[in-house]
Amino acid sequence: MRIMHTADWHIGKNLAGFDLAKDQDAVFEKLVETAKKEHVDAIIIAGDLYDRANPSEDSVDRVNHMLYRLNRKEGFPLLVVSGNHDSGVRLGTGQQWYESTKLYMRTELKDAFTPVELEDTQFFLLPYFEPFAARDYFKDDSLTNINKAMPPVVEKMQKQFAPDKRHILVGHFFAAGSKHSDSETLVNVGGLDAVAVSDLQAFDYVALGHLHNRHALDDPKVQYAGSLLKFSVSEAVQEKGVYIIDTDTMQRRFVSLAPLHDLQQLTGSFARFADPTNFSAEELDAYTAVKLTDVEVIPNVMAKLRQVFPRLIELKRETHVDLGEVAHTDVKLAPTKLLGDFFQQVTGSELSEQQMEWAKAALAKAGEEKK
Amino acid sequence: MRIMHTADWHIGKNLAGFDLAKDQDAVFEKLVETAKKEHVDAIIIAGDLYDRANPSEDSVDRVNHMLYRLNRKEGFPLLVVSGNHDSGVRLGTGQQWYESTKLYMRTELKDAFTPVELEDTQFFLLPYFEPFAARDYFKDDSLTNINKAMPPVVEKMQKQFAPDKRHILVGHFFAAGSKHSDSETLVNVGGLDAVAVSDLQAFDYVALGHLHNRHALDDPKVQYAGSLLKFSVSEAVQEKGVYIIDTDTMQRRFVSLAPLHDLQQLTGSFARFADPTNFSAEELDAYTAVKLTDVEVIPNVMAKLRQVFPRLIELKRETHVDLGEVAHTDVKLAPTKLLGDFFQQVTGSELSEQQMEWAKAALAKAGEEKK
Repeated sequence: MRIMHTADWHIGKNLAGFDLAKDQDAVFEKLVETAKKEHVDAIIIAGDLYDRANPSEDSVDRVNHMLYRLNRKEGFPLLVVSGNHDSGVRLGTGQQWYESTKLYMRTELKDAFTPVELEDTQFFLLPYFEPFAARDYFKDDSLTNINKAMPPVVEKMQKQFAPDKRHILVGHFFAAGSKHSDSETLVNVGGLDAVAVSDLQAFDYVALGHLHNRHALDDPKVQYAGSLLKFSVSEAVQEKGVYIIDTDTMQRRFVSLAPLHDLQQLTGSFARFADPTNFSAEELDAYTAVKLTDVEVIPNVMAKLRQVFPRLIELKRETHVDLGEVAHTDVKLAPTKLLGDFFQQVTGSELSEQQMEWAKAALAKAGEEKK
Repeated sequence: MRIMHTADWHIGKNLAGFDLAKDQDAVFEKLVETAKKEHVDAIIIAGDLYDRANPSEDSVDRVNHMLYRLNRKEGFPLLVVSGNHDSGVRLGTGQQWYESTKLYMRTELKDAFTPVELEDTQFFLLPYFEPFAARDYFKDDSLTNINKAMPPVVEKMQKQFAPDKRHILVGHFFAAGSKHSDSETLVNVGGLDAVAVSDLQAFDYVALGHLHNRHALDDPKVQYAGSLLKFSVSEAVQEKGVYIIDTDTMQRRFVSLAPLHDLQQLTGSFARFADPTNFSAEELDAYTAVKLTDVEVIPNVMAKLRQVFPRLIELKRETHVDLGEVAHTDVKLAPTKLLGDFFQQVTGSELSEQQMEWAKAALAKAGEEKK
């Protein structure tokens, strides 16, 4: 069978105050198009459908319509788990009825061990869960984190494995490296302990949500779908989309989905940004983080940049400074010397004579006011 | 067929700070018992399942379990509309799937005109709606209130009437008297205009929610179920429960459901309330509004009463005053005369000589401080 794998929709999210609803609707349309064009037999949604545990009425309406569209209107079987941003209870409303049309939703650990069988594949739907839920379920107080909780979870699932079927785990957690490698594997991300990918090798495929970068892991079996949209400047260079998995070969491939508005980071002078003819329509339309190379004060710079880039989400200065390098032993230097060094570090230039005079005058005035 | 009619569950409500969840669970169990004992063929829930449009996760869990229990576990067909306290969008999550097991839920006006047919009856499920929804749906700007909106709603429903069936309307609105009687019929209650019961006579039965008093209307066809619990002191003497309707005779009868804790209003002296032996276990256990006949100051009275009545929800003094009767022309009387009159009106006694001396001393001191 052919499966689409998506995750981390985060409906209700905004980006630096911009409502992403229209962007999310648009990329969802691309997802539907792709599912139809690829003739997928089922769609995995690996958690974080919502951005918040108590989503707005508008977000609830949006997700309800998306699930309705995919499952009832387009007829795709859906395999859904709740993520750490979802409220299992709220997302799970109606779940006992959904299966009448092959919408399989799991929001509690205890429901993860009965696989959903579709065609040649058994799907194990493991919602996001806290370690206490595992301790409670397995009656084992030693399961103090997700890393420790996963082996008994997998073991219990394996007992349900039908040998002639493919076995796919759908989950929402932080997975990393191998259990026996360095400390990186156990680092906390988003409040989740890391699961060792070596503990997940019993499955033919592990369809994950949680990390928004689809390249977060490099494993032949374990894959993050990544988010459908870029949600931060750090994701500016990431390609977003969905995975398509064919269970006959267990090959997966990525299909990128174009956003309504891209998210970009641009570096340059104010003079360049102030002239729209320097940019394409797509660039002017994108959510834009600007890094200015200018040193001078530019009055009203945000408002001026917004006239060119209406979706401005961040403004920074490019500086030469690494504040970590400032020698703390210099704190007893004269104020003008300190200022000169700081200016040098931040701008890469020395204070001009005129600037130094202004600085001295300001320091003198400040000294007077202090008395 | 035999139908149970309930409404106004208000899950999530509290009473003077007391969480009613356990009371609501307990009366729900009585409702389930009654439905089974009476062998009802369907259950109407006429709105306000929730107390708030954005209910807590606990409330969502509770309502989800109640609907699951009635419909999936006990197998009752359900006929549900949203009330003015519900968010149609949130309550309506999953509604397109619910019908697979005969859970019929309507949360939008536009969905009210396709009847649900069960056995010998057509059910028209009319959720709470605002006048603008009717104006929008009927493209008629003259529908400025619910009173005006109801005739076209009923007319449109009547076009769907199968002549050999019973016709039951399930609704959540304020209905009153006749359209042509006095001004009382058009009074606002809870922000809803009144619907004239004369406009509802096309139906064999109108199963309403909204008003918590089942005796709010006296009409052969139009009936409020009333709430399952007493939610205020003004409801202390009301009997709560459900209606059972038999469609062969269209007779209805009330089945009262005993609460876990009753709600009572008691009047008497502090001395009487301070002694638990004056009361039955049920009385001591009830949500209690106390009206004290005492005139004296009683230090720490709330705490003392709570030791006897742990579910104390209100404390008032019984006075002889009707403040509306205070003659406003008397405001130029001397302060001591004013005080004496006020004391007389409030307590029914005159100020004693000692009290008058205290009053004079206090007035003199207040006068000095003013200078």
